Amino acid sequence: MLGRVRTAVAQLVGGLGPAPGAQHPRDSPAPPPAAPGPSACRGPPVGGGFSRPAFLQLTSEELQRADDHAGRAVQSPRESRRRLPWSTGYAEVINAGKSQHNEDQACCEVVVVDRRCSPRCNPVPKECTGEQGRKDLYFHYWGLFDGHAGSGAAVMASKLLHLHICDQLRDLVDILQDSSPPPLCLPGIALELPAERNRAPLAQADVELPSDALPRFHLEKAVSHESLVIGAIENAFKRMDEQIEREQMTRLVAGGCCALAVVYLLGKVYVANAGDSRAIIIRNGEIIPMSREFTPETERQRLQFLGFLRPELLGNEFTHLEFPRRIQHKELGKKMLYRDQNMHGWAYKRIEEDDLKFPLIYGEGKKARVMATIGVTRGLGDHDLKVYNSNIHIKPFLSCVPEVRVYDLTQYEHCPDDVLVLGTDGLWDVTNDREVADVVTEVLMGYEPNDPCRYTMAAYELVVRSRGVLKERGWRLANDKLGSGDDISVFVIPLGGPGNYT
Amino acid sequence: MLGRVRTAVAQLVGGLGPAPGAQHPRDSPAPPPAAPGPSACRGPPVGGGFSRPAFLQLTSEELQRADDHAGRAVQSPRESRRRLPWSTGYAEVINAGKSQHNEDQACCEVVVVDRRCSPRCNPVPKECTGEQGRKDLYFHYWGLFDGHAGSGAAVMASKLLHLHICDQLRDLVDILQDSSPPPLCLPGIALELPAERNRAPLAQADVELPSDALPRFHLEKAVSHESLVIGAIENAFKRMDEQIEREQMTRLVAGGCCALAVVYLLGKVYVANAGDSRAIIIRNGEIIPMSREFTPETERQRLQFLGFLRPELLGNEFTHLEFPRRIQHKELGKKMLYRDQNMHGWAYKRIEEDDLKFPLIYGEGKKARVMATIGVTRGLGDHDLKVYNSNIHIKPFLSCVPEVRVYDLTQYEHCPDDVLVLGTDGLWDVTNDREVADVVTEVLMGYEPNDPCRYTMAAYELVVRSRGVLKERGWRLANDKLGSGDDISVFVIPLGGPGNYT
Repeated sequence: MLGRVRTAVAQLVGGLGPAPGAQHPRDSPAPPPAAPGPSACRGPPVGGGFSRPAFLQLTSEELQRADDHAGRAVQSPRESRRRLPWSTGYAEVINAGKSQHNEDQACCEVVVVDRRCSPRCNPVPKECTGEQGRKDLYFHYWGLFDGHAGSGAAVMASKLLHLHICDQLRDLVDILQDSSPPPLCLPGIALELPAERNRAPLAQADVELPSDALPRFHLEKAVSHESLVIGAIENAFKRMDEQIEREQMTRLVAGGCCALAVVYLLGKVYVANAGDSRAIIIRNGEIIPMSREFTPETERQRLQFLGFLRPELLGNEFTHLEFPRRIQHKELGKKMLYRDQNMHGWAYKRIEEDDLKFPLIYGEGKKARVMATIGVTRGLGDHDLKVYNSNIHIKPFLSCVPEVRVYDLTQYEHCPDDVLVLGTDGLWDVTNDREVADVVTEVLMGYEPNDPCRYTMAAYELVVRSRGVLKERGWRLANDKLGSGDDISVFVIPLGGPGNYT
Repeated sequence: MLGRVRTAVAQLVGGLGPAPGAQHPRDSPAPPPAAPGPSACRGPPVGGGFSRPAFLQLTSEELQRADDHAGRAVQSPRESRRRLPWSTGYAEVINAGKSQHNEDQACCEVVVVDRRCSPRCNPVPKECTGEQGRKDLYFHYWGLFDGHAGSGAAVMASKLLHLHICDQLRDLVDILQDSSPPPLCLPGIALELPAERNRAPLAQADVELPSDALPRFHLEKAVSHESLVIGAIENAFKRMDEQIEREQMTRLVAGGCCALAVVYLLGKVYVANAGDSRAIIIRNGEIIPMSREFTPETERQRLQFLGFLRPELLGNEFTHLEFPRRIQHKELGKKMLYRDQNMHGWAYKRIEEDDLKFPLIYGEGKKARVMATIGVTRGLGDHDLKVYNSNIHIKPFLSCVPEVRVYDLTQYEHCPDDVLVLGTDGLWDVTNDREVADVVTEVLMGYEPNDPCRYTMAAYELVVRSRGVLKERGWRLANDKLGSGDDISVFVIPLGGPGNYT
């Protein structure tokens, strides 16, 4: 069970004054702490209904308009209302009737991390009281959540993932702000020690080969501050996934979601991706990929390896081998191209009865599927997802652990046009990194460097261009190709300011 | 059981005439076909004794001198004897007493691939007779094998791996030379068809989510010629490993080996690496890595994943979790940094009884070990390798499958100084890519571009410089640091000629 977490929407970065009509606290710690326990995610809109990110502050009329799958109005934060932290730009649009409710969700917050005090530390030691000049720790946070099979998991993750990250960081508040290497071991609660096991032979382990293979028990691996933050984010995704699982048992939360989360902490940007959303940095016109997509094709070998080691997960309906097409029963005995879990290349094998099963991984590109069901292999939720008309669970093949990439903001002098762009697959399905970079650069050139709305205008333009214009033959791009019929959500985050990087 | 394979040491490439004293057939297919069956690897020196690559053609006196671990004479092909195919340069030296017998082995051959004829195709169809203008297929081959715990596996692989590659290519002779895409299915021997299974629900599979997830049964994946060659090399490594396993049962073959194999076929160079040897291309001074090393550190997650899924392989002595140092019994209940199989970062966990086990992966850099025993995670052999003083097998954690990288020789106009360098870890332990490139460039500049011995001189210089000079305090490099005390074997292969690339 997670401890309670105090979170705060802290003051806007860069000295922008409160916008008229703002309803969020700005200059003080936030209202009663939200705990990432089950209670925090109860009630609408989790599990159904239609909701949009709180930071859009839509009126009920506007919410209704945003839910119009025919009109597909592009939404972004209004200048007259609240401005997003870090001058972040944002825009989104609903899908063209692909699913009933918009399945993208987003979050943009500044979160204050409280030190964790041991429940047994009584009286409270000074280091828990914020005395002795110890600095508070806070992080900036952006999240995009692309849901499938219902909006429940995406809504829940958008409201809670940053609190889980906060919770994972609570043990690290002082460690991360201390320049000395992190301690390998921390004091803990004393346990009743069981009798020491006899650990021979390894207690005096020696090996015959090679001669330099003697285990070195005195080894100590150095662990960096950065890898602690990565570990905290990875574990936060796991806890978030466990919480969704608990909620799904009560049927309040449906489906799963891809999650792309960005944390700015102590000078570094951590981009954590689990799914097929994408993040790129555009710096001086150059593109730096900050994520990769996790799909049945990119994770084929991990999935096949699991199916090979745990064939019972395949339910006697699937084979872990890959084939370039379905095999027909009459082809038994012929030779067919195949790929095993440890192969990158293809070879021929004689077709046996077992090869008639459906391949665990099947299809190409956007049509590739795990067990004929799902096209992404990492994300949150999906605990109840089964192969159609069967009792075979998909979840064991999905991973909730993100890949985290790190970008050190202090290593480069950024100009106002250098940005981090986050987008769900609705954006990237119809455009590529270069085109996105060109659009962003073009839009930003049209605004003064200190115009706070320029990043939202860039996000807006990206969404409009990838959605296209409604013509007789559907939504069309400028080149008359089909526009993206999916939800599209985009953050444009300036790297050059107005953040205070120190 | 593998079919018989006819192999040939074909004519030297580039029109170099037979060297005086050459004992190998040159201009005609080789002597009676060697079959990569068990019989082909019987007798000395497999399993013991001391042997050097046949292409060195050492006299018994020279062999004795090569076995001198104190003198460490550098060996390379003598100009007066046989020259290696493709003007290949080669040099090697024995270790400084690290192990009794030199554990590196090497091979350099040209292999002719015969079409496979079905044993049932009687009378022999025309396509099996080489008529109808069908071209023969041959490949150039270079292999380096760095043995451990005995020379048996390395010797056996050096004599047979290319025959296994040849065997895997036999089905592909015509397919690879046909410009149309490879057929997905080949005719085979008809089997007695069992009654068709009821494959519902997937026979009419549909899925609820996402809406575009319907399986497309009519999909056909395009497979390239290149990926067939990669698959053939991968499967050849597997068959080689199986053959070593069969031999090890009879105790004739000891130990295991890293394997780095290069195949030149139809204009492309395939570099297959399983272990910690390394291949780089030096082209116009630029370095192109052609392999990566497989070690407990680079393959940590694959190994931990296996230990996590199959804890019985850890024999109740090891934990799949990684810790930065050994945990002491008295630390139970404290918090320690750890890394799980799906993490890149580190986090703290409360130490439990199970965490006192030895970590599956432990140590850093060259000292990293799997189960405190072995420092490489891919290679051939090691079927009998166990954790010291226990019955825990290491082999399940090792992979015999290489990573194959491809370089298209036809895409670039190579000059005589562009080379592919292959080296065992004895070379790379004391030098880096840049230094190797500089030495090679420096040596090659000292010889005429058409001097056939220039590549052997480059290999020779690389070996001499990484071995160092024997001083009072051992073998020392030019900078007085310790030289490599390991076996060192190096191929230098010219990319610009004299090969005929078409």
